[in-house]
Amino acid sequence: MTSTPSDPAVPTLDDPVPAARLGGHPPLVSPAEAAALVPETATLLVSGFGGVGYPKLVPEALAASEDRELTVISGGGVGDEIDRDLVESGDMARRYPFVPNEHARAAANDGRVAFHDRHISRLADEVRFGGLRVGMRGKTIAVVEAVAVGPDWLVPSTSIGHTPAYVGAADRLVVEVNRAQPLDLARVHDVHVRGDPPNRAPIPLDDPLGETDGPAVRFSPDKLAAVVETDRPDDPYEFREVSATDEAIAANLVAFLEAELDRNPLLADAVNLQFGVGSLGNALMSALAAVDFGDRDVTYVGEVVQDGLLDMLDAGDLRGASATSLALSSEGQERLFADVERYAEDVVLRPADVSNAPELIDRFGVVGVNSAVEVDLYGNVNATHIGGTRVVNGIGGGGDFARNCRLGVVALPSTAVGGDVSRVVPLTPHVDHSEHDASVVVTEHGVADLRGLSPRERAEELIAVADPSFREDLEAYRARADAEGGNTPHHFPSAFSWHSTDT
Amino acid sequence: MTSTPSDPAVPTLDDPVPAARLGGHPPLVSPAEAAALVPETATLLVSGFGGVGYPKLVPEALAASEDRELTVISGGGVGDEIDRDLVESGDMARRYPFVPNEHARAAANDGRVAFHDRHISRLADEVRFGGLRVGMRGKTIAVVEAVAVGPDWLVPSTSIGHTPAYVGAADRLVVEVNRAQPLDLARVHDVHVRGDPPNRAPIPLDDPLGETDGPAVRFSPDKLAAVVETDRPDDPYEFREVSATDEAIAANLVAFLEAELDRNPLLADAVNLQFGVGSLGNALMSALAAVDFGDRDVTYVGEVVQDGLLDMLDAGDLRGASATSLALSSEGQERLFADVERYAEDVVLRPADVSNAPELIDRFGVVGVNSAVEVDLYGNVNATHIGGTRVVNGIGGGGDFARNCRLGVVALPSTAVGGDVSRVVPLTPHVDHSEHDASVVVTEHGVADLRGLSPRERAEELIAVADPSFREDLEAYRARADAEGGNTPHHFPSAFSWHSTDT
Repeated sequence: MTSTPSDPAVPTLDDPVPAARLGGHPPLVSPAEAAALVPETATLLVSGFGGVGYPKLVPEALAASEDRELTVISGGGVGDEIDRDLVESGDMARRYPFVPNEHARAAANDGRVAFHDRHISRLADEVRFGGLRVGMRGKTIAVVEAVAVGPDWLVPSTSIGHTPAYVGAADRLVVEVNRAQPLDLARVHDVHVRGDPPNRAPIPLDDPLGETDGPAVRFSPDKLAAVVETDRPDDPYEFREVSATDEAIAANLVAFLEAELDRNPLLADAVNLQFGVGSLGNALMSALAAVDFGDRDVTYVGEVVQDGLLDMLDAGDLRGASATSLALSSEGQERLFADVERYAEDVVLRPADVSNAPELIDRFGVVGVNSAVEVDLYGNVNATHIGGTRVVNGIGGGGDFARNCRLGVVALPSTAVGGDVSRVVPLTPHVDHSEHDASVVVTEHGVADLRGLSPRERAEELIAVADPSFREDLEAYRARADAEGGNTPHHFPSAFSWHSTDT
Repeated sequence: MTSTPSDPAVPTLDDPVPAARLGGHPPLVSPAEAAALVPETATLLVSGFGGVGYPKLVPEALAASEDRELTVISGGGVGDEIDRDLVESGDMARRYPFVPNEHARAAANDGRVAFHDRHISRLADEVRFGGLRVGMRGKTIAVVEAVAVGPDWLVPSTSIGHTPAYVGAADRLVVEVNRAQPLDLARVHDVHVRGDPPNRAPIPLDDPLGETDGPAVRFSPDKLAAVVETDRPDDPYEFREVSATDEAIAANLVAFLEAELDRNPLLADAVNLQFGVGSLGNALMSALAAVDFGDRDVTYVGEVVQDGLLDMLDAGDLRGASATSLALSSEGQERLFADVERYAEDVVLRPADVSNAPELIDRFGVVGVNSAVEVDLYGNVNATHIGGTRVVNGIGGGGDFARNCRLGVVALPSTAVGGDVSRVVPLTPHVDHSEHDASVVVTEHGVADLRGLSPRERAEELIAVADPSFREDLEAYRARADAEGGNTPHHFPSAFSWHSTDT
């Protein structure tokens, strides 16, 4: 290390854009040389969230080199160089907190990779303070993508995720500087690092769009072991076509939100909205343009900026967005990259333990809309396990928002598998959000407003939004369950007749 | 109303003890006259938490008078005058958030009373901002116990619970001034009222024992419809005898906490501990005296001050306690009442939406220890429903602490019903805390440290702390489940063979 901490200037809130991609005297190496810095047994902490802003060349080089036994911890969703290549090479032994890719998902489901699904809001602390115990083995190597690096700072690219926590927790830091990501992305970042409990301060934000610290992730200069350069773009989300069912769900959601604007005192002046990641979430965001918000300020307060939000920003329907990732499609990225400076006026990215912090979700009275695999008659929500056993993606921030938002909406189609499977079921065999958290369920058949209802009353509302072809069977289950009694009645011998793996 | 807001002085942080029980010109009436102020259809918001500080004479008079259809919402656990008398009289149509009494519980389970179980931390907001919707019918009448009342203030008695929120949300206020509760209880109260989202400020506490606002619950003077006097004492908790199993669980917990003190950087200087309500919780609190905390500050940061905490305070093992209720036994109450002024130096009661606030539990890095009905092989926790259907008590603050604390411990005996029923089960049919939240499970057979483990690995740890007589069956289930595959394997046809209500 010949660079010095004072050279060059650390990007700040007032002067966010670094003067150069490579500041000071970065230890530039090839991807293979960087990969060689990762020991045989190690914990790899990678940037990336929403499928963007992840390191590309070093994971690829790791997969191509000697065998390793790695715990891989990302912010959220990342690309194939990590969740395909490191799985196929056999280097990934353990994975947190998300498996959004078919390769990692298959490996989790057949037990090749030991996976555990963690709340996004808690993961930074878990990594910083040993909360994953045996899950973090060997040296801890952070590999993060940046638009620029200095001797003791870096500026993230298209997502922040848990990069500040991972850089702080790492024994060694490897930075991939990506010239395909605009340097002006520095304008969207606000990197607030939380203090350590029990002397942690409140997050100093009284407005979801407020800014506190500027774009730099700081680190001790002796950590920086290698810098790699690349110009490989993200391989971001592809949204599927919006379906007639998506549109019907969106129409029901819009009608519900408009009614709620009239009656909910917390929405009188301002509405802070969160939508989950994915094609349905994106379609629902786009549908918001149809809501008459009157003269209320509407702000997105969530995890991901998706294409639907750019439409709303462009139309002037949205005051702005606070998130941790620009999880755009390729087209969305092009659109944003063409005018980063303008979008940066209204968009702020934060570390994921800030974007998803329970205290902020509560403080700003967020209305959260998230999808699910299935819901049961009492409002329990399975958001992660198909058939109750096979993980898809992971809980991500769904639990952070479902648990802490002012009004939690679960929006989902009433069926799956072309109508063969009901997503309203007697009993969810996996529960991510409990009956204590779900408030409102929206399908293409209507809105089940569960607030204040007892379990028996909830069942009635939920059967009414199930697909008509399943309502009779659900009613029959309810009758069998009621005959057994209890505050939350069930008839266990038939509770999983729709989930049975084998008889 | 002839009283004026300026007379007499509002108790403050500096001068907490009111000069008189009845300040100004209180509208003193009989319990029957107060009950007559409650319309036929109404929402009754009552003080009380942990079985103490609830109104006694007015609910009793309500039960004895004309038939009503009431929604009854308490802070937490309350006495027989509410949860027995109003159930037996048929006046209680709906109940939130807790049924800690056999009468209300039976009525919830057979559907006579529509009950829904709410998180304690969220309930104040739900009542203030319409979050229970149809659950709150008719006029809203707050009936709260106090040690003293003035024209526009009252001072709570042995618990605060949600009294400030309920008084704020009520159309009419009825106060029971209880001369059996020492006036010096004013010294323990600190009534911070949270602002309204989306412009809510952080809770202004940087120390769990900090004080902000003093003991007065303020209200608009035109709300005060009636004051009733009583000297009937609380009918508080009776702890059962500590069993050999309790002692074995406590010994395992103590060993775990001591190991954790050595390895957890967050516990280096101070330990903030929460224990759940009940006999086991109280026994575990008492066992803390055996832990060698070195020179760390140890503080209780939870919901309830139980007898075990008084022992620790007296022994000088505890810096102090922050809670929302003095949920003591009769003996504990006598002990505290004999020397309130001294105990008040170290004990502070707060509104339940402050004591249980996710932001404070996170900020202070709380280690939470709570009990459960059963846990499953993957760490899902059923804390509320016996056999999966019949509610006991309710989730209370268990979810607030399990979800937000730094380290969540579930402590429970490995069996129930004299050893006939395993509390470690293949699949919990009701989930209050999901696999994402539980970190450590302690039984009399050992400690299952689940942190960082995949579901398959969790199952191994949990079988090892099950009762030996059930381990073979649990292993056999695991083998059947593993054969089906998936990240969280299950064999649904036999998942509930231990819960089946009927075949």
